[in-house]
Amino acid sequence: MVNREHPRKLDVAVLGATGAVGQRFIQLLENHPWFRVAEVVGSSRSASRPYGEAVNWVLDGSAPESAANLIVKPLEAALTSPLVFSALPKEAAETREIELAAAGHVVCTNASANRMVVDVPLLLPEANAEHVRLVDIQREKRGWTTGAIIANSNCTAMPVVMALAPLRQFGIKRIFVVSAQAISGAGYPGVASLDILDNIIPYVSGDEDKLETEPLKMLGALDGDSIVWLDAAVSAACNRVPVVDGHLVNVSVELAARPTMVEIIEAWETFRGPEPVPQLPSAPEKPVQYLPQIDRPQSRRDRNAGNGMATSVGRLRECALLGYKFAALSHNTIRGAAGCSILNAELLAVTGYLADFQPATAVYSAQ
Amino acid sequence: MVNREHPRKLDVAVLGATGAVGQRFIQLLENHPWFRVAEVVGSSRSASRPYGEAVNWVLDGSAPESAANLIVKPLEAALTSPLVFSALPKEAAETREIELAAAGHVVCTNASANRMVVDVPLLLPEANAEHVRLVDIQREKRGWTTGAIIANSNCTAMPVVMALAPLRQFGIKRIFVVSAQAISGAGYPGVASLDILDNIIPYVSGDEDKLETEPLKMLGALDGDSIVWLDAAVSAACNRVPVVDGHLVNVSVELAARPTMVEIIEAWETFRGPEPVPQLPSAPEKPVQYLPQIDRPQSRRDRNAGNGMATSVGRLRECALLGYKFAALSHNTIRGAAGCSILNAELLAVTGYLADFQPATAVYSAQ
Amino acid sequence: MVNREHPRKLDVAVLGATGAVGQRFIQLLENHPWFRVAEVVGSSRSASRPYGEAVNWVLDGSAPESAANLIVKPLEAALTSPLVFSALPKEAAETREIELAAAGHVVCTNASANRMVVDVPLLLPEANAEHVRLVDIQREKRGWTTGAIIANSNCTAMPVVMALAPLRQFGIKRIFVVSAQAISGAGYPGVASLDILDNIIPYVSGDEDKLETEPLKMLGALDGDSIVWLDAAVSAACNRVPVVDGHLVNVSVELAARPTMVEIIEAWETFRGPEPVPQLPSAPEKPVQYLPQIDRPQSRRDRNAGNGMATSVGRLRECALLGYKFAALSHNTIRGAAGCSILNAELLAVTGYLADFQPATAVYSAQ
Amino acid sequence: MVNREHPRKLDVAVLGATGAVGQRFIQLLENHPWFRVAEVVGSSRSASRPYGEAVNWVLDGSAPESAANLIVKPLEAALTSPLVFSALPKEAAETREIELAAAGHVVCTNASANRMVVDVPLLLPEANAEHVRLVDIQREKRGWTTGAIIANSNCTAMPVVMALAPLRQFGIKRIFVVSAQAISGAGYPGVASLDILDNIIPYVSGDEDKLETEPLKMLGALDGDSIVWLDAAVSAACNRVPVVDGHLVNVSVELAARPTMVEIIEAWETFRGPEPVPQLPSAPEKPVQYLPQIDRPQSRRDRNAGNGMATSVGRLRECALLGYKFAALSHNTIRGAAGCSILNAELLAVTGYLADFQPATAVYSAQ
Repeated sequence: MVNREHPRKLDVAVLGATGAVGQRFIQLLENHPWFRVAEVVGSSRSASRPYGEAVNWVLDGSAPESAANLIVKPLEAALTSPLVFSALPKEAAETREIELAAAGHVVCTNASANRMVVDVPLLLPEANAEHVRLVDIQREKRGWTTGAIIANSNCTAMPVVMALAPLRQFGIKRIFVVSAQAISGAGYPGVASLDILDNIIPYVSGDEDKLETEPLKMLGALDGDSIVWLDAAVSAACNRVPVVDGHLVNVSVELAARPTMVEIIEAWETFRGPEPVPQLPSAPEKPVQYLPQIDRPQSRRDRNAGNGMATSVGRLRECALLGYKFAALSHNTIRGAAGCSILNAELLAVTGYLADFQPATAVYSAQ
Repeated sequence: MVNREHPRKLDVAVLGATGAVGQRFIQLLENHPWFRVAEVVGSSRSASRPYGEAVNWVLDGSAPESAANLIVKPLEAALTSPLVFSALPKEAAETREIELAAAGHVVCTNASANRMVVDVPLLLPEANAEHVRLVDIQREKRGWTTGAIIANSNCTAMPVVMALAPLRQFGIKRIFVVSAQAISGAGYPGVASLDILDNIIPYVSGDEDKLETEPLKMLGALDGDSIVWLDAAVSAACNRVPVVDGHLVNVSVELAARPTMVEIIEAWETFRGPEPVPQLPSAPEKPVQYLPQIDRPQSRRDRNAGNGMATSVGRLRECALLGYKFAALSHNTIRGAAGCSILNAELLAVTGYLADFQPATAVYSAQ
Repeated sequence: MVNREHPRKLDVAVLGATGAVGQRFIQLLENHPWFRVAEVVGSSRSASRPYGEAVNWVLDGSAPESAANLIVKPLEAALTSPLVFSALPKEAAETREIELAAAGHVVCTNASANRMVVDVPLLLPEANAEHVRLVDIQREKRGWTTGAIIANSNCTAMPVVMALAPLRQFGIKRIFVVSAQAISGAGYPGVASLDILDNIIPYVSGDEDKLETEPLKMLGALDGDSIVWLDAAVSAACNRVPVVDGHLVNVSVELAARPTMVEIIEAWETFRGPEPVPQLPSAPEKPVQYLPQIDRPQSRRDRNAGNGMATSVGRLRECALLGYKFAALSHNTIRGAAGCSILNAELLAVTGYLADFQPATAVYSAQ
Repeated sequence: MVNREHPRKLDVAVLGATGAVGQRFIQLLENHPWFRVAEVVGSSRSASRPYGEAVNWVLDGSAPESAANLIVKPLEAALTSPLVFSALPKEAAETREIELAAAGHVVCTNASANRMVVDVPLLLPEANAEHVRLVDIQREKRGWTTGAIIANSNCTAMPVVMALAPLRQFGIKRIFVVSAQAISGAGYPGVASLDILDNIIPYVSGDEDKLETEPLKMLGALDGDSIVWLDAAVSAACNRVPVVDGHLVNVSVELAARPTMVEIIEAWETFRGPEPVPQLPSAPEKPVQYLPQIDRPQSRRDRNAGNGMATSVGRLRECALLGYKFAALSHNTIRGAAGCSILNAELLAVTGYLADFQPATAVYSAQ
């Protein structure tokens, strides 16, 4: 059993705290049962100023009081928090995250810089909690004791992997994905309004490559000390759309076992992920929900399902080319970014990877 | 040689003239070199009122003066115009269009009701001008002399067919299409703003079926007195997006001949359609233009290319599943509806199918 | 002291339950500490069907389970719930609401039909809780015992009145209002997307009249058995804008006492409304919050302040014509409609106007 | 009589040519009957590259071929074109525009830097063509021979001044303006999409000040060698809205002469501006058009009236505070920026202020 409360909260730092995803970390960590934001790290422009002044808060309302009073630290500052969440841009992330891990911090990162490094778990607890064991490999190989680096995936890969994870049992062979991605996926200021109002842009820099690789690692199996990627072919086309939050994907999939539609829907509806994932504080009751209406999921109406942590799937129907097609949607800055990173940290906590902090005795066991 | 001016303009009627596509007909026919709107036909609610009063003009500006003063006729009224453009809803179109054709009118329709009838050409001049000869079959079979019915395609099929027509030479085997369709495609009032602002709807009633069938007829070959459909598999997924005009499609295609990207782009850029199509008044200079920028075509910025009659294609790249993928865009109520119907009528005129009205001596010849 | 929980919940009915505001009632009443939706009333099209099937849910997610299973009753059905919330269209509301009140029901209505009737309180608890006493006049005059009818205001009047109520102490003389109103204010299907995407419509049917009268009644004082309207001149201009929720108003105001900006901001920030209003379950902690940022309030970012029940004010500055100007924002379907009606009912409960149901001993006293 | 064609076109330079307004200059000057873009000037980042490569074209379609091949010159480059259009940012404009005028160039600028300088005409030909004579003062005072600097107004001031100019005859006393401004008014990248999608921002930096001063200078009278400002009080509130192009204003106005609504509408409809303004190539047939529909003007539907050069006015009605209120709309980057600057240059040409270039013998005369 996982305790949802813990007598003492663990100090955490947020890197890139003034950016759009950084703000989402701050927002989601407000009142977190286990973690407490103790340090915020920003650019040189923000450093030494109170967070509440330095941040141009782009989410609803204002920055939470508790974070607003923290003084922003510069990127190179030594940190005291054992756990670090990173919303750094790729370039800044590449070396700094490794340095922090080497210095003993557990770094849960949303940056793409280290995602595809062989010993870095691309962790999505419901789908691949067992990948957390790569941390042991990491520590052994790199000579780290308490430090580690754990990544979450690209925000558009998220609804694809969440929808496909329950279907692995049927043998995934080929995947076709076309996305409709919200503007918040590009950060702030990100997409210029003149580029997206009354417009669709059939291009998102770098995301097609990520969509064609990250899911294969995420849906792969831990074999000894490495991940064996899923053996499937993926083709992705990415579009930016005038939607604030929520990445919607049209997916076609070929399944070796040729299940019925009823079997597929049951696989989604009963999917919970392995123990103890469903008991983690940020885990949604149903990671995947199937919507029976003919015109769902919809970006605005379904992005907040399960506090933004549930993936909504709908419109399962036959595909003349691959067998089945459907639509799936995840909130891109919650489930697809900060929320997933926090869930990853919760899994690390209960599986003993956060030194001196284990809010529950349960140790994850893949069996 | 086709004369772009004609000493006498042909009277035309517009059915469903007060609807969104009907208005586009009225707008595009204003100052047309060959045709003159002489009759407007509307619902019983509009009948007997001046068009300018009856119409809730949803396009830019106001209804053209000349049309504004016409008195709206009821649907069942006998018409005097030899040529009739129909923007009727499907149900109203089904019988009325046939009645008018039987009464001697040439009916160019945007309605879906009769599109898939075997002897009705689903005409797109640049792609299948030879299909116009089905009119001979029609007349013979049905005992019509001057009457005929000619359909244009679904508005989302348009960018697919325009982009694929130049590629037929390479042998089209399989097609994957995911659309991002503008709200004007649903007419007026059509999509409720509460359904589409800050939202994507992964469903457009009926359009996936149309996308999986109409292109095969349109890209088919006239063989004797019928069309042999293109032998290709199509899978389509349709989405409604918050864009005013312009249907964008993400297309993947398998081509038997495995052409290079250079060959494909050249096929698009040099595509003009058969003579005398390029000389028709509404024909764009380039029916298909390839945009080299990495993020084009875009709905708002490219929908008006060639006065809304050109299809823009971009982002040609390899597809891990089918060989190639690209994005294509057509203006849905111009090229995808009223503008195509007018171009169809222009082709009928020069090929002698409009009795007593042939603005040019040139007769279409498929060779 | 008001108990926020009550041993037994009061059955309530929702009229017009399938409409946009009706849905908001259903959503806000889910898990209400005092009230329980026992009856849902809809149009003849919906009647006799389970609510979950009859409703086209336009809010986020889906209709709450508990309401989904209720069978929709026709408008003319006799009701058993002592308390009735009405989201009826004006025409339907006019007679039906009076009939229900005459039959003993307390009717809290969002409809405009009876708002300006002399003995009907146009109730906004923080601003004019004392108006609740008009119910005594109503009952006496009309011979009702347990029945009553209480209205909430037009949704655009709401941010105006909420922002001005704390300023009454300074003597309000003239008011200039220009609105930017969200599409949800027009119900569903309401505004056609073709009318509002990439567009502003400088007209909202009927709202300018309401804005120029309702605030004067709401800000008026109970004098004996009637309300003496505020003696102020109002000019309003209304605009529909492409925003989902949230009505923003630009207000200029002339204040007789010529307070300083500091005094005005203090009046807003300290405003709570009279006892026991701040203790009601749906009352926000701060009914009016002043935002110091130069570019707030903003429709999307501030509409959900205080669970949609707080009004955000900002940009207080001098006005060359009237003295001061500022911007104010309220969530139009929560504070401006269903949420206010529920707060009204809560006030009725604690002040003893709901027969046999008084969740607290405190009786409102205007002294 | 003004010749609309001229045997030789005058070379012009565009400063800030790669920005959003600079692009609009390039677009509007394509095929101009009198002027020919010979030089494009950009930032150091763009300098020495072909314009077509350096520019990130944000308008529809692509940069015109002719301009695309010009090599971008750096800001400090000496120019050969006698006429210079400036779309520079304020800071860059301040000194460079004066230097160019001193060097003999006629500079028509959209920048705000020099607008309120006493001897710089804030020119709007239909409203204040006589202000062009300030150029004589300028030249005399500053010792310039062929050089001059002429400004056009802020883009939001435009619909206000265009709507009020025909009403000067009635004696304008007080003006209340609330704007709804398009995103293109902020240039590119300008407004971040996260700031404006599904949102209204009740703040536009600097524009309220401009709205409260520029119209008074523009509507002022030339008296000897200076402009006597209109003696009226103005209060402005500015809002940014999710609209691509078109600034809409809600205006209330007090008119000393208390004209009837019929008289006001007639004043608008018959307004043409003084000779020879109506004959200038870029002058719209009707500078101000009154729309009788109850819900017009609308940003999207009316911004392109008169090729973007006409101002649309509607909803004239009584105002309880000032007498009358109405809505007005101008295209902000055409009439409100580049288009006005070009019209200004056309007026300079026919009135003899462009040395050696006078496409018509007509000299403007204010009488």
